[in-house]
Amino acid sequence: MRAIHSIAELRCWRTQARVPLGFVPTMGALHAGHGRLIDEARATCASVAVSIFVNPIQFNASEDYARYPRPLESDLEFCAARGVDMVFAPPLEEMYPQPQNVFVEVGPVADAMEGRFRPGHFRGVATVVLKLFQIVQPDRAYFGEKDAQQLAVIRRMVQDLSVPVEIVRVPTVREPDGLALSSRNRHLSGGERTIAPLLYLALSAAQRSIAAGSRDVEAIKRAALTVFAGDPRVRLEYLEIAGDTDMQPVQSVDGPVRVLAAAWVGGTRLIDNLCATPP
Amino acid sequence: MRAIHSIAELRCWRTQARVPLGFVPTMGALHAGHGRLIDEARATCASVAVSIFVNPIQFNASEDYARYPRPLESDLEFCAARGVDMVFAPPLEEMYPQPQNVFVEVGPVADAMEGRFRPGHFRGVATVVLKLFQIVQPDRAYFGEKDAQQLAVIRRMVQDLSVPVEIVRVPTVREPDGLALSSRNRHLSGGERTIAPLLYLALSAAQRSIAAGSRDVEAIKRAALTVFAGDPRVRLEYLEIAGDTDMQPVQSVDGPVRVLAAAWVGGTRLIDNLCATPP
Repeated sequence: MRAIHSIAELRCWRTQARVPLGFVPTMGALHAGHGRLIDEARATCASVAVSIFVNPIQFNASEDYARYPRPLESDLEFCAARGVDMVFAPPLEEMYPQPQNVFVEVGPVADAMEGRFRPGHFRGVATVVLKLFQIVQPDRAYFGEKDAQQLAVIRRMVQDLSVPVEIVRVPTVREPDGLALSSRNRHLSGGERTIAPLLYLALSAAQRSIAAGSRDVEAIKRAALTVFAGDPRVRLEYLEIAGDTDMQPVQSVDGPVRVLAAAWVGGTRLIDNLCATPP
Repeated sequence: MRAIHSIAELRCWRTQARVPLGFVPTMGALHAGHGRLIDEARATCASVAVSIFVNPIQFNASEDYARYPRPLESDLEFCAARGVDMVFAPPLEEMYPQPQNVFVEVGPVADAMEGRFRPGHFRGVATVVLKLFQIVQPDRAYFGEKDAQQLAVIRRMVQDLSVPVEIVRVPTVREPDGLALSSRNRHLSGGERTIAPLLYLALSAAQRSIAAGSRDVEAIKRAALTVFAGDPRVRLEYLEIAGDTDMQPVQSVDGPVRVLAAAWVGGTRLIDNLCATPP
């Protein structure tokens, strides 16, 4: 496996890489969820590239950016063990050599939920993903369903900007108790880790309510929120039911939807989502 | 020469095109200024592609969009005669099959001059040029100096978004009396055509003033504006002196600058610019 830290060297590598080239953009701190993205790419592409870059322009709080884990050595081992052909791990100044003035503005798909609670987040995500697509020039790129709104944002960006990259959706990987894998889980204390699966359990309650025939969003939300009732250590930020493609919250469930939530467990912010289909 | 009207067919062509591929994006109504762009591409690239697309999202007034000339047949002949390998002339729905939600926001380089008098213009230009770059995937793209602020916008976009396209600047082509070639010149009546060179003459006066040692922008502007003094048929929109890369207006000339102006002659809006260097 080759590790590359400059755009110029990457462009040379790209001209020799076998096609189709699969690409997994990450912020590092790799876990089995990323492993599943890499496995999917490996299974369907002749070459596989992974990027590891903690992107400052998608963070709202500088503390969150500063404390985001960066275990580069073990990440490189993780990739090598899974048959990745190339890891692109640029320093900050390689990606942002001058003040970033040009941004991708995403529009309505980025307005609700994460977009509402993390203003500018998706602008930063869309901008860095577009940059990485320009640099790596993959044929396919793999994104986890755990970040469902991010997936919808990237899909819309690729459509509207005619980017020649196929976006592949990969299911969320979970712990046995249902907690979705996330690089931020390592910030959870022992006690916080015990209650963190409540987020998944609340989404599951909403999913069951929809499967049982509930259509009224307020009633479905109430069913989900009872899961948190006893525990003040979980601070829900939002729980919404939205269209899977447009990420617009709905008032009534009339077809397949996605149930999405964000919650703080202690000082760690967790997000998760499930699809739900009425009977 | 091949004429292509769909993105899918273009992507097939691209895989067979010889590299380096030179690209000249246009809105059609081709004239000798475009011819010079094509000649430059022809001289330095193995294959040359031209796009012809009147881009609605960069127009402010729907009348201007509606009356923009669209002589497709003669444009195709123009390209064939100049050795163009491929013309991409998509219908509107090929470029914008759904409401465009995602845009490239350009930042300060787009704020003054054209950006001030045509709000949203450069957002539309940057977005369609990025789309065309994604579709055509050229190695180099050729832009005329006549649209100096557009050139600066595209350069900044390519830098900030890491787009793998080299931007080549090509000098303005002028009529013998100095009028810069433009597709909009054909809207000028005979009398308007006679006075249209006043724009170039005013810019030349500013250029001479700077070459003679003037540093104060207000004094330089006064020197330029005397050219229009006698003629109320020319309505100046702006005349500014700005940095050539950042397109920020300056108050004092301390090095090479660009003098830029826009003026209405009858119902036709003309722009032009000249570089100027102090002694």
